[in-house]
Amino acid sequence: MKRRDEDSLIRTLTRDWPTAGLATGVGHDCAVIHAAPRGTLPVLKIDAVVEGIHFTPSAPAQAIGHKAIARVLSDFAAAAATPKAALIAIGLPPDFSENRLRQIYRGLETTAAAHRVALAGGELTRSPAFWMAVSGYGHVRPRHETRRSGAHSGDLIVITGQLGATQTVHHLTFVPRLAEGQWLGAHRIATSMMDLSDGLGRDLPRLAAASGLSFAIHPENLPCRRGATASQAINDGEDYELLFTIRPTAWNRLSRNWPFATPITVIGAMRPAGEPPSTGGIPFRGFDHFHP
Amino acid sequence: MKRRDEDSLIRTLTRDWPTAGLATGVGHDCAVIHAAPRGTLPVLKIDAVVEGIHFTPSAPAQAIGHKAIARVLSDFAAAAATPKAALIAIGLPPDFSENRLRQIYRGLETTAAAHRVALAGGELTRSPAFWMAVSGYGHVRPRHETRRSGAHSGDLIVITGQLGATQTVHHLTFVPRLAEGQWLGAHRIATSMMDLSDGLGRDLPRLAAASGLSFAIHPENLPCRRGATASQAINDGEDYELLFTIRPTAWNRLSRNWPFATPITVIGAMRPAGEPPSTGGIPFRGFDHFHP
Repeated sequence: MKRRDEDSLIRTLTRDWPTAGLATGVGHDCAVIHAAPRGTLPVLKIDAVVEGIHFTPSAPAQAIGHKAIARVLSDFAAAAATPKAALIAIGLPPDFSENRLRQIYRGLETTAAAHRVALAGGELTRSPAFWMAVSGYGHVRPRHETRRSGAHSGDLIVITGQLGATQTVHHLTFVPRLAEGQWLGAHRIATSMMDLSDGLGRDLPRLAAASGLSFAIHPENLPCRRGATASQAINDGEDYELLFTIRPTAWNRLSRNWPFATPITVIGAMRPAGEPPSTGGIPFRGFDHFHP
Repeated sequence: MKRRDEDSLIRTLTRDWPTAGLATGVGHDCAVIHAAPRGTLPVLKIDAVVEGIHFTPSAPAQAIGHKAIARVLSDFAAAAATPKAALIAIGLPPDFSENRLRQIYRGLETTAAAHRVALAGGELTRSPAFWMAVSGYGHVRPRHETRRSGAHSGDLIVITGQLGATQTVHHLTFVPRLAEGQWLGAHRIATSMMDLSDGLGRDLPRLAAASGLSFAIHPENLPCRRGATASQAINDGEDYELLFTIRPTAWNRLSRNWPFATPITVIGAMRPAGEPPSTGGIPFRGFDHFHP
């Protein structure tokens, strides 16, 4: 990047930021947001992506911006929360292309605007490596909030969408399941929920641990993306689908009323804590994290 | 760092986090915060520090954690806002010492707790370089909020504390001027305010630009830290003092009622937009950013 006035670069980069809901936006020391609806609580999340770890140096620039913010929105979906604003910190190597940076911002803006999320502030700093940290702010009604910890033994394990074969395209283009997560929270159907960012093989043990339970998966029921085996569906990671549990009696109501094109699939059930996890013989990466 | 279970590392690192005010903390996809006081608006900020840019690899570990969060708190001070929660994203090189990381977390915790800020969530990711991004959440009463943009021509320019000679110790140990900033907002004395992170020579032109004004500084009035010249006081940066403006008639009330040990000093006055900035002949770094 040619050496240029930092303030002028920031003005250029933030010119088209979506700002709905901001009382004070870019250009002051802090952002101030319009009041949240009565009866809601503030929701916060931070996440980060690093070049060479979460995307290659040749990944399309707009997709990098998309992924950086969509990962945070996926966490809001998992909490059944509504994201309202995001802030962006970027570490920028001296030789980074300004045009590529502008395209990354374009990706951020497009995805933020598509989900009615304001871009409320940012920080550019020099760095030996390129990385982006995104923090999200939003709100949730306490009765709608879902956590990882609410599952009961016997609850059915359900996922949205398809799993596996994520690393060619999906990890850069996925759509966060915000409407689906908010619907599940508003209808109080999900007893626990999280998003699948590290793969079912690492994330389901986390949900089970948070709920103090074990689980049984039927691999033949896994909805695999075209070209993915059941093992890849479990272990590829970066699905950004919702993993949630429901009371066994709730499935009829859920499947009858589910208003989305996104498929939902029962893949197993929660089991009492003492039982060993059952996976139909498919190794789960992450078991050693759960049962050292 | 020895290869270890990421979840167990996070449990260890977050065990002593201050959590006052959290409804849902670490271990779920999002953090949920207790409701803010009626009549306040949400306030957000993100900031980042990078090894080799904001601190050297040999800087004391706890001071790095302190600096990472105190920079954000300093921005809350400048908005006259009350910080309530912070989230931390960290990029971690594979060979980074776990003990050093724990000390950095100790610094974060100590400074967060000292200012009654909860640590609400975090993200650890591999990275070729070590960096930390901190996002802050808090609240402010709209009548108390101060911005960079409210100064009038003729307003006095005031700073807290002393300037310059910041790079040996101060930039790692400064105390964010939260009580002072909140007092100035609550008493509606400051017509504009920001914190001095890049030095008076870059930040005063920013405040003047945001207010659509020029300024005149009297270098002989600058409160220089021991060993600093007026030029260093203007250009060293990383003072983390408050820069604010007041109506000329407000000085008596301010100086009589100021309840803090932190000194306050009038260093000049705002001038109409057309006038060239007057600095008593001392070059301001950053003028080329303001007047290209």
